[in-house]
Amino acid sequence: MHITDPIADMLTRIRNANNARHTSVDIPASNMKKAIANILLNEGYVKNVEVIDDNLQGIIRITLKYGENKQKVLTGLKRVSKPGLRSYASKDELPKVLKGLGIAIISTSKGVMTDKEARRQNVGGEVLAFIW
Amino acid sequence: MHITDPIADMLTRIRNANNARHTSVDIPASNMKKAIANILLNEGYVKNVEVIDDNLQGIIRITLKYGENKQKVLTGLKRVSKPGLRSYASKDELPKVLKGLGIAIISTSKGVMTDKEARRQNVGGEVLAFIW
Repeated sequence: MHITDPIADMLTRIRNANNARHTSVDIPASNMKKAIANILLNEGYVKNVEVIDDNLQGIIRITLKYGENKQKVLTGLKRVSKPGLRSYASKDELPKVLKGLGIAIISTSKGVMTDKEARRQNVGGEVLAFIW
Repeated sequence: MHITDPIADMLTRIRNANNARHTSVDIPASNMKKAIANILLNEGYVKNVEVIDDNLQGIIRITLKYGENKQKVLTGLKRVSKPGLRSYASKDELPKVLKGLGIAIISTSKGVMTDKEARRQNVGGEVLAFIW
């Protein structure tokens, strides 16, 4: 199946698995999606990220994280830039998500990183998604 | 008990009741808090708002709203302006919450309203809270 927006597909899969309180969710791999998954891991939103070789494009298996009483740790994901309407931010106008409660994932010339890291490295880029 | 920040107290009570999936939550009334509760109702985040006369300051009873499988409808509340650090926005810099997925509650000279309504009425004000 051809997917028009693989990143939107990734976020939807995570959102649905998370709402259903699944333990983990599998996503067809790409370098961009691996980078996003690793940011979710580093920022504490998910429990584990594993890349599985299936002799095809590979699978990213994300183990989800819940708090007491199965409360969500990752409460929201939103695609910002879209194939039909790209969204960019210069280094001086990098977005803040919920006053720093969440993160923006930015694709920069120095790699895919959080808004905080982009601010530190003084680079702008494409605003891929908001996570909170 | 003296409460330093009655609005933060209101948001915390709602957040806790919502996390515990309670049917409703009671909050000591004030005009500002009634205005906030009515915005939550008008924007579809809660099911009902009722003001109860207790011969004291009054009680706001908010009936919470859940989706299928007790999913939260109101997923987050954040106090923005605080007694120790007030936060204001002019009419040209009214905040957008999660690219319009959420709302900001603004206290303006024309009353307490959402960021969208403030934009329509062309007024700025104190950014009381973000709701999403």
